[in-house]
This record gives sequence, C-alpha cells and structure tokens, in this order.
Amino acid sequence: MPASPAIDPAALTALKAAAGADWTDDADLMAPRLVDWRGKLRGATPLMLMPRDTAALAGMVTVAAAHRIPLVPQGGNTGLVGGGIPPADGSAVLVNLSRLNRIRSLDAAGQLVTAEAAVILADLHAAAEAVGLMFPLSLGAKGSATLGGLAATNAGGVQVLRHGTMRALVAGIEAVLPDGSIVNGLSGLVKDNTGPNLAQLLVGAEGTLGIITALTLKLVPQPRHRAVGWAGVASPHAALALLQGLQTLSGGQVESFELMPADGVALSAAFLGQAPPLAGAHAWQILVELAGPQPLAELLAEGLAAADDAVIAQSEGQARALWRLREELPLAERREGPAVHHDIAVPVSRLPDFALSATAAVEAAFPGGRVIAFGHLGDGNLHFNVRAPRGEGPDAGAAWVAARGAGVTRLVHDLVAAAGGSISAEHGIGVLKRADLARLGDPARLAALKAIKHALDPQDIMNPGKLY
Amino acid sequence: MPASPAIDPAALTALKAAAGADWTDDADLMAPRLVDWRGKLRGATPLMLMPRDTAALAGMVTVAAAHRIPLVPQGGNTGLVGGGIPPADGSAVLVNLSRLNRIRSLDAAGQLVTAEAAVILADLHAAAEAVGLMFPLSLGAKGSATLGGLAATNAGGVQVLRHGTMRALVAGIEAVLPDGSIVNGLSGLVKDNTGPNLAQLLVGAEGTLGIITALTLKLVPQPRHRAVGWAGVASPHAALALLQGLQTLSGGQVESFELMPADGVALSAAFLGQAPPLAGAHAWQILVELAGPQPLAELLAEGLAAADDAVIAQSEGQARALWRLREELPLAERREGPAVHHDIAVPVSRLPDFALSATAAVEAAFPGGRVIAFGHLGDGNLHFNVRAPRGEGPDAGAAWVAARGAGVTRLVHDLVAAAGGSISAEHGIGVLKRADLARLGDPARLAALKAIKHALDPQDIMNPGKLY
Repeated sequence: MPASPAIDPAALTALKAAAGADWTDDADLMAPRLVDWRGKLRGATPLMLMPRDTAALAGMVTVAAAHRIPLVPQGGNTGLVGGGIPPADGSAVLVNLSRLNRIRSLDAAGQLVTAEAAVILADLHAAAEAVGLMFPLSLGAKGSATLGGLAATNAGGVQVLRHGTMRALVAGIEAVLPDGSIVNGLSGLVKDNTGPNLAQLLVGAEGTLGIITALTLKLVPQPRHRAVGWAGVASPHAALALLQGLQTLSGGQVESFELMPADGVALSAAFLGQAPPLAGAHAWQILVELAGPQPLAELLAEGLAAADDAVIAQSEGQARALWRLREELPLAERREGPAVHHDIAVPVSRLPDFALSATAAVEAAFPGGRVIAFGHLGDGNLHFNVRAPRGEGPDAGAAWVAARGAGVTRLVHDLVAAAGGSISAEHGIGVLKRADLARLGDPARLAALKAIKHALDPQDIMNPGKLY
Repeated sequence: MPASPAIDPAALTALKAAAGADWTDDADLMAPRLVDWRGKLRGATPLMLMPRDTAALAGMVTVAAAHRIPLVPQGGNTGLVGGGIPPADGSAVLVNLSRLNRIRSLDAAGQLVTAEAAVILADLHAAAEAVGLMFPLSLGAKGSATLGGLAATNAGGVQVLRHGTMRALVAGIEAVLPDGSIVNGLSGLVKDNTGPNLAQLLVGAEGTLGIITALTLKLVPQPRHRAVGWAGVASPHAALALLQGLQTLSGGQVESFELMPADGVALSAAFLGQAPPLAGAHAWQILVELAGPQPLAELLAEGLAAADDAVIAQSEGQARALWRLREELPLAERREGPAVHHDIAVPVSRLPDFALSATAAVEAAFPGGRVIAFGHLGDGNLHFNVRAPRGEGPDAGAAWVAARGAGVTRLVHDLVAAAGGSISAEHGIGVLKRADLARLGDPARLAALKAIKHALDPQDIMNPGKLY
C-alpha cells in the first residue's frame, strides 16, 4: 500500500509532464468516471490520464512507478464490483483508456482481429460481421463495455456454453506492465509453447498486474442456421438430462441453455404483457438455442421430445419473443421488489442439487425470503437472488434487504464454497467481494497469486486495493 | 541455482525419511528414466521419488524446500526437449509420478473428467469413449504420454484447429507448489472470476512452477459423422483459401487440415507402397477431415470443388489410407536421409508466404539443403525440415547436418521470429531451446516470467535449468 493517501504534488507534476497533453484534472470531465454505473461506489482522483497510444501510456506508467503513484485503469466503466473506480481518498490516478479505440487489423483467413483496449464490444461485433465472421461473446452492456475491461474481468455472457468466456477467445495481449515495460503478444499464434502464457495471466487479473492496451481475439464463422425452443420440465435434474441429450444429438451445437423457475417466467411474461410460451404449469422452464451450418429445427424437436412440453420458434419473431422473456426476467424481478443478488457458479453437474438445496437452506434461515434462481445451466452460472418477504411494500422490503443482506450473502457464499463453486461467476472481485474471497478462497492459491502480484508490482501501484 | 552440484547427504537422508517407502535409488530402476526416448540427453540422480498420492508428494516437496534440494518431475518421458531429464551432474532428485495414475471421477453430464497426472492419454481416451464422449487431443505418443506432462508442455496434436491445445482443455489443476503447499483447483467450473487463473499459469510451465498432480479436463460429444478428403492446389495460398471456405461452409467443423508438398506425398506413398491419391502433379496437397453430428460428405465435396483436384474417402478404409499417407510422412522423410528438424509456428494467415520465402532463404543460404515443410495449416504449425544435400550418402548427410545444423536452425528461428512466429510450436523449451528463447523472446515477457518463477520458487528447486 502507498505510505500515505495523498499523492505528492511534485510527483503529480512529473506525471503530468510525462503525459504531455494526454491528461485532465477538469472535475466535470472526470465526474462521470468516478462513479460506477449503479451509483454504488464513488471515487476521487487529482488527475485523469488519457493516453493516445501504448507508448504514451508506457511513458506515464514508467514515471508513476518511479514516483510510486497508484494507477486505476478504466475501460467502459460498466463493472459491477468497483474494479475500475479509484479509492475515495483520492490516493490514485485514473487511467482513462478511451482513446485506445482502434481496430488495428482484421484477419479473415486466420479468423483473428487485433483491437485496442477501448474498442466497444458492439463495434467489434459489427466489424466481424462485415467480413462474414462473428465474435461469439455478448452481454447486456455491449454498447458501452470495452474489450480491455472484458478481458481484465474475463467476461462471459449467454454464449459461454459453446464458445467460452473471454479467456477462451483471447489469442494474445499487448499490455503495459507495472514497471512501464510493454509486453507485445499480439501475433495470435494458435501454437506457441515457449513457457507460461502471460496473456492468460492478465485475463481476469482486474488490472492488478498491468494495463491491457490491445488484444488479438478469435473469431468464428457465422452460423447459417439457428433454432430456438422453449421446454418445460419438473426439476433442474430433468433440465440437465435434457441438455446432455441435446449436446450428444447436436454434437455440441448448443449455443445457449437457460434455466428459469415457473414464477420467474410468469413475472417476465406479465411484465412484457406476453402469454407464457407453455400452457401447463411446469416448475422449471428452459430456453435453448442451437446454431450451426445445417438446419437444426428437426434436431431440436427430437431433443426436446424428452421434455414434458416444448415449443420450437417458427420464425425470427417468435425466437425473439422467447429470448425477450429470458432477457427481461432480471428487470421484471427487480421491479417486483428489493432482493439480495448473487453472481455465483457451481460445477454444472452439481447445479440441480444446489438449486434445490440452497433454496431450501436460505429460505429456512431467512423466513419470508423468497429465492429466485435462474441462469445459464450449461455453464453452471446461477443468478441466485433472494427477494424480500412478500407484501411488505418497497420501503419495508428495502429495509429487510439492508438488515439481512450481508447475512444472506454470507450463507449463499458458504453454500457455494461447500459445493465447490465460485462466489464470482462473471463480475469479478473488485472491492465488493474481497472479504469473501479472502475468507473462502483456497489459501495456497491466494498465496501464490499474491506472490505473483508482488513480483510484477512490488510497489503495489497497479489498481491497488482491488482483488486482494 | 543451487550453491553446489552435489546434494548434501544429510539432506538426502531427510528427504528419504519424508518419502517413507516411496523412493528408490536402484540404478536399474532409475536407468530408463534418466535418458530421453530419442537417446539424446542423459541425466543422473542419487534418488528417485515415487509418491503414492498428492499428500505424500507435498510432504516430500516441503522437505526438499527446507533443504533446498532441486526436483525434476517426470511423466511418461516422451518429451523432445529434455524437460523431464535431470541434469547430468546428479544435482537434482527425480520425481517419478507414475503412481498418480487413477481416474478419480468422470462426469458425463458436465462433460468433465478428473484424472491424476500419470494417467496415460490412451487410457483417458478409452474412459471417455466408454461413456459416449471424447477427449479431443491425440498424438503419436498417446500410449506413453501422461496427462501431467501433456499439460506441463501444453501439448497439441492433429485436432488443435478445432479443439485447441491442452490449455483449452484444462478446466482445473491440482498441484504441489515449490513450497510444498497444495493448490486444489479441480472443481471444473466453467465460470470462475475470482482472480487470475493459476491452472492456466501451470500449463506450459514445464514443471518450473510446481508439480501437476491431477487435472480436470473437458470432454466433448463423439461426432456421429466424419468426412475425409484429399485435395491438390498450386500454392499454400490456395490451400489457405480452401480452408477459409470450408470453415465458413461447415460452421467451424474442420477437425484437421494438413498441408504437404508434392515431394513429401511422393516419399510417403513410395514408403507405404501406396498409389498417391491424386493422379496429377499438384505442388501442394491437403488432407482434410470434417466431423460433426450430421452427414458431411456432400458439404466436404462442395468445399473441395475450389481445389484443382480432390477425392473424398468413400469408406473407413479409404479414410485410413489417406491418413496413413500423412502420418507416415515424417518417418518416410527420416528414412530418406538426415535432416535438421524444426517445430515452429507462424500466424495462420502468414503461413503461405512464410512457407515459400523461408524455403527460398534457407536453400539460398545453405546450397544443396532441401527444405520439406508440412504440417497443420489450420493452426500455423509447420514441420520445417532441412534435408542434407542429395546423393551424399548417409554418412556425408549426417556430417552435413552436424556441420550446418546449428546455423540452419539459427536462420530458421530468425525467420520465424521475424514473421511473428514461435520457435516452439509443440514441444516446449526444456534445455534444448533455452538459448534461442533467450535470444529471440520478448524481453518484457521473459522478465515478467522470470519474476513469477522467482516469486513462486525463490530457491529455484523446481525443475531448475529448464525453460529459463
């Protein structure tokens, strides 16, 4: 940790000099970057760096290292755990990466794109589509989230089952390390066995080991056919069996497999003014999408024959309507009232048991609390949300969440750890989950990660206070 | 580095005591493990540890750390760069992992298997197939190579284009770190964003950061259909265009795409006493395999229509005959005479230019030398071999290789580095490629990797002298 929270004015002057014209301390320009988008975390900083390119950033980091000035890199500022927000005491300088926003090259034959850290995900999608390819990672914040942040937090989304998280899609990284050196790893080699992969170490490191400035990412062919269906089953176990059957039948062409409880579907349908897809009352419901080079509707119907009931979308419009039911579920749930939210994962094969047993345990420990668990069955990722007791009104609900939230979360995270799961499936650790990571993480793993952090950043200037 | 090459006898006694019955110093038992299978490297050791389980190994490593005794982990001893052979001066203890050979669990629903480090690849294949799944990595040494070594060297093979190297297939690792602590990362979570991924750091580290004791690996559905074809084209550029077309057409179902020059095919066909698959003299020839859930022969024929000539295997027997032509090419080439071999990779889209320009440069610099370049076009991996001048006889050929080999390799590696490639696509660095890695590697990357090595293994006891 820095010896004192205030940055030495002479050091700040040296950093500004190194930054040339690439900085500001205008409060109005900095303000939107000092609060996370949910408004939960507020930071402060005396200076915002805005490097125009990698070499400029490297020069700034070199000076920051010499003067031991903490740096907080920030991309699209769509994070949910405060990883990109500087400390409130003004002890760190913000590194706004938004000018590193060029797509440097697009290699259709090699199915690779090299793009800078601040390229927005939706812009990358468009660039890939323009050459008949696809970048197979998407999420709600795609209009703001940037590639550097997506890699630093190993972002996921709805296609992880098929294509993996950012980790699987990163073929190379260019980064500025905490000493100001530039690691140049953008060649995008599929095979390169010359020691451990440094790019993979930066993925998920939340900016604590260096600042990602550019990435080489894998692209895939656009599927020519899609098939979307909705099915009802009696249990999450039946849902998992259905997924397994579909994977076998389709040879792994299952792109999404989303599990929802009946009351969640009802909430979402009511919110959208849509009829539920199935007439019967099926305790658990599934949205499934197959994608591939050949027609898939028949195959999907064959796979869904094992469900209690199912429909297959007959048009793009029907497919979109089914997807909206799933996509709007979180919003519908939030509108119903306050809840304690959790972003967790367990091993896929343990998810059915966990969904039932953790629900029972939480509802027993917190009477009146109502669990709603939905998410990506195929990758073990559950949104496990505990709603305040019914009928207490918004203020009483909020008070229940304020009073019980920490206890609920502690129990949920304990249950997750006992099931061999993760207390952060998608969003990362940032500042919000540090305490639980320290409490529940594998001590040998955490000790090794801290040793690596200290080796690469002995002065702890790179996003200090995050993750560890 | 250890202060002195000889291990202190008292330290050795302490290590034996920690090992209980799990050690030997019988020269006959140790001998086969002290030479690599090509017979190029010979090591020596006063002691071979044979841990019965992970806890036993952790106890041994703890004592080795306390006494600063270097350890060399070894799996199936099929490596090609000496990574598993102890130094010839007897300064290190060999850790024979062969007793860690259980498949701990096989989770068909989650498509995961957890197996110990010394499970042989072919045995893993059989276990996956028994539940209708497949482990999609295979290579020539599959009957001896073990999972720990495959992960420590990030092994590849012929299906990398579709399924990736070991790195992509490792879902978790259990390992003993250089201080004797056990990292327990076998839960096989698809999503886990709680900091950098330590398992990924151990992949490709060649045992320098810890000893892998068990792995959770991804399995995939067995494809129900395969189609194998052979095509002739005029240039490697045409071959790459053909691959790109097939990827688009098949939605990424290309499992293998092997490029061979005409004289290589002729060598292999003559060696096997088989007729070449195509009648015409096509300068470059391709073996391609598609695999997926639906019939693929028509699609393959459509994709190969862009070639100058092509055949599609009409039976399993024909498919096997085509594959044998590719698989026996290295042996046919070796029987023709001595050559300088290289295991290199370049970015896929640069491979066509590289294959032609590097061949011209090497043949110009070493008159009489004859390049034969073949390999996995789809992942940029070329076997770039430079044969001794024709007609000099075996002894003269060997003398040419002995005299020119180092110079040839230096030029080839320089050309690879200039093309943004890798001097070790598959085999790793070990001891044989250390000098060229130090000469050609990215200095910032190497400095970071050395800092990480020192952080996790400050006494340099874990496979010292390898990689760095």
